[in-house]
Amino acid sequence: MGLTVYDLAGAQDDCRFSPYCWRVRLALAHKGLEAEFLPWRFTEKERLVFSGQDRVPVLVDGETVVSDSWAIMTYLDEAYPERPLFDTAQARAEATFLKYWAEMVLQPALAPLVLNDIYRAIHEKDRNYFRTSREKAFGCRLEDLPGDATARLKTVRQVLAPLRRTLGGQPFLGGAAPSGADFLPYGAFQWVAVVSGTTFLEPDDPITAWRQRVAGWYGDALDVR
Amino acid sequence: MGLTVYDLAGAQDDCRFSPYCWRVRLALAHKGLEAEFLPWRFTEKERLVFSGQDRVPVLVDGETVVSDSWAIMTYLDEAYPERPLFDTAQARAEATFLKYWAEMVLQPALAPLVLNDIYRAIHEKDRNYFRTSREKAFGCRLEDLPGDATARLKTVRQVLAPLRRTLGGQPFLGGAAPSGADFLPYGAFQWVAVVSGTTFLEPDDPITAWRQRVAGWYGDALDVR
Repeated sequence: MGLTVYDLAGAQDDCRFSPYCWRVRLALAHKGLEAEFLPWRFTEKERLVFSGQDRVPVLVDGETVVSDSWAIMTYLDEAYPERPLFDTAQARAEATFLKYWAEMVLQPALAPLVLNDIYRAIHEKDRNYFRTSREKAFGCRLEDLPGDATARLKTVRQVLAPLRRTLGGQPFLGGAAPSGADFLPYGAFQWVAVVSGTTFLEPDDPITAWRQRVAGWYGDALDVR
Repeated sequence: MGLTVYDLAGAQDDCRFSPYCWRVRLALAHKGLEAEFLPWRFTEKERLVFSGQDRVPVLVDGETVVSDSWAIMTYLDEAYPERPLFDTAQARAEATFLKYWAEMVLQPALAPLVLNDIYRAIHEKDRNYFRTSREKAFGCRLEDLPGDATARLKTVRQVLAPLRRTLGGQPFLGGAAPSGADFLPYGAFQWVAVVSGTTFLEPDDPITAWRQRVAGWYGDALDVR
């Protein structure tokens, strides 16, 4: 029985922009596991009832159902230990900091660059949900997100400083080859790349080169099909 | 032949406040290695000529001289592989991000809380050097560092968010036991603790509990003697 992932989609089936779903897509590619990525929209909560919660990603592996990107990564290393995402408990524990940095620092800094693009990219039936939930989270209308384009770019570039310095000195966050550590912030960059034309990295930024290295490493396995 | 560390000191020999030197003290304690920590002041550059550079920490191990806290940690894992600071290349590579986060995000946020305390704590002969170098780095007089006490505390608490969340879910940054990953930000907290009365963590902050766990783990081995 194959693996199935419920994967956030925009109006177009091939628009897969969730940073958390990207972690799972990368983790599966890393392990060389094939999966079917079912497009799912924000308001299709009833389709996830079987998982006991209402968010994606959800992984279905035979009788096993796992939700939450981090829990899915952990599950995959347990169920499919070859080509580990994290090669020791220490490597996994350290990556927790990267996870929270990506979620609490990087993604909030990128959000003002990308939320309106997401609003335009998502299915019409999702727009009310998206606007209401995001405006509540940010405390303002999508049209009134803080900063102008210049200020937002400045914030993002500043926030990226430790990532840039790290990747200026080593090919991947986990060393010589990509690993689960890389996928945590990589998902955030895909979030922007998939829905937005915004270019916020200089071509000579070490982060740009890292993104190309990760994409090149997995090649077709990351294609949305 | 024993190990020797050149260790930044204030006017008092037992005032050891360098975040980088603390990494080395912790790393040696972790490995159960005894060392002599020689007090060294900022302006005693001539005492370091043998090391080919002019900053501490410097580790002397027989014929081997290593400067830079990260290089010393790497050296210690190579020369004394038991009780590793990082148990795999992946764990070490991931910790590079923590290193740069501590240096480029955490320490700059803590600096306005602590620089004037350091100025008061250091030897009189170091004060001119310290004032000149720090005022150049921060672009203002020590007395004019940005923000008032409330704003600085707010910045620090915000910056600490991903560390707090991580340590709310696991005992140490490297998992169930302390490791090299913990020592990178821990040094920054020692920097403040040694010279300053500033309390910037709530008693119920998971970071407070983590600091106590690290200190408790090594006990006397961290004492300045």
